[in-house]
Amino acid sequence: MERDSLKKMQEKLRQFNEDRDWDQYHSPRNLAMALSVEAAELLECFLWVRDGETIPNEKRTHIAEEAADVLICLLNFCTQANIDLPAAFETKLAKNAAKYPVDKARGSREKYNNL
Amino acid sequence: MERDSLKKMQEKLRQFNEDRDWDQYHSPRNLAMALSVEAAELLECFLWVRDGETIPNEKRTHIAEEAADVLICLLNFCTQANIDLPAAFETKLAKNAAKYPVDKARGSREKYNNL
Amino acid sequence: MERDSLKKMQEKLRQFNEDRDWDQYHSPRNLAMALSVEAAELLECFLWVRDGETIPNEKRTHIAEEAADVLICLLNFCTQANIDLPAAFETKLAKNAAKYPVDKARGSREKYNNL
Amino acid sequence: MERDSLKKMQEKLRQFNEDRDWDQYHSPRNLAMALSVEAAELLECFLWVRDGETIPNEKRTHIAEEAADVLICLLNFCTQANIDLPAAFETKLAKNAAKYPVDKARGSREKYNNL
Repeated sequence: MERDSLKKMQEKLRQFNEDRDWDQYHSPRNLAMALSVEAAELLECFLWVRDGETIPNEKRTHIAEEAADVLICLLNFCTQANIDLPAAFETKLAKNAAKYPVDKARGSREKYNNL
Repeated sequence: MERDSLKKMQEKLRQFNEDRDWDQYHSPRNLAMALSVEAAELLECFLWVRDGETIPNEKRTHIAEEAADVLICLLNFCTQANIDLPAAFETKLAKNAAKYPVDKARGSREKYNNL
Repeated sequence: MERDSLKKMQEKLRQFNEDRDWDQYHSPRNLAMALSVEAAELLECFLWVRDGETIPNEKRTHIAEEAADVLICLLNFCTQANIDLPAAFETKLAKNAAKYPVDKARGSREKYNNL
Repeated sequence: MERDSLKKMQEKLRQFNEDRDWDQYHSPRNLAMALSVEAAELLECFLWVRDGETIPNEKRTHIAEEAADVLICLLNFCTQANIDLPAAFETKLAKNAAKYPVDKARGSREKYNNL
């Protein structure tokens, strides 16, 4: 499904930025900063709530928007830093699988903390 | 391409976490915290360098890994918070396009700053 | 008490950095990045624990160190950005007091969320 | 000078929070989250500007306010986590001095990166 493909999303963003001549601000370093800022905006939605609390419906739209902002920054970053994100994902997941074998890691927060 | 699909990646992560019984730690709130931590680890790669500096090759692997960690956290978050990320992406991009029409936003950092 | 004074701490840091000729890396922008990175390292200490959980003693030293790192970055930032931090603190506290009058804000998370 | 003392600031905040019955939200974990959010708000002031750019005067008040917010969160955190911040500062500075001896660290970003 096209809308589901990272490369297609990245391509849409590339066009979006080119149309606005925004690449001039998009150094990998600037985008890494923007990504941290967006991640913190998502985190802010969860301040002062309890872990178990369900997210109220009126907050859900806002949270989804913040999650989208994180993805947008991450894809812009990968474009500018020339990183193949799906490949990086596969490599990292394989590395994690080797580091946390199922029989040892199962249910262990100790292991998890060292992720 | 399968490796390029967000849903497929999310599915792989769901299996990965289920195998290790890690969902118990994966409240949306915890994952939002983890996402901020991962974004900061990516940012750390760009501390004390200049904007124009090219990324040395030996650093590229590390940076790609940190970018993958951000994606992993974001996908785990969307799974647990029940957010359709590709849909959120489309909605946000359309919103940004309406907010920053090409003719007005072109090359303007002023606009950009209010993104 | 001298060790308690922000200005004295700032002065010690200024000497420390001057001795190492580190001011060249200390643009306000770089230090704002470093501050975010240090804050995330403090946050990382609280990942995957529950809100009520007491901090184990062996972790306390590490947490205190991360808190000190945040203060060091913040003071370096204020030095370079020419910000009088004690004055800014007083101004902000007065502003908060006006925004959250005791009788209205008491115990209310609603108010608090808009802090 | 009283306004310069961390302990006095911490005492003022303790009173401020007690008056509003806000301690119930102030677990160390929540405050560590809030600190990351505030640090990111400070960072946001420096997005899309160049390293050398001087801070425009109209932005200075806002930046000072964000710096104050970081200090407020940090002090609230230290109160709740029972951390003696001036002591932690001294310990960390001594540790850094030992790790980065003047003759070796002078002007070296290499060293600095491992700070």
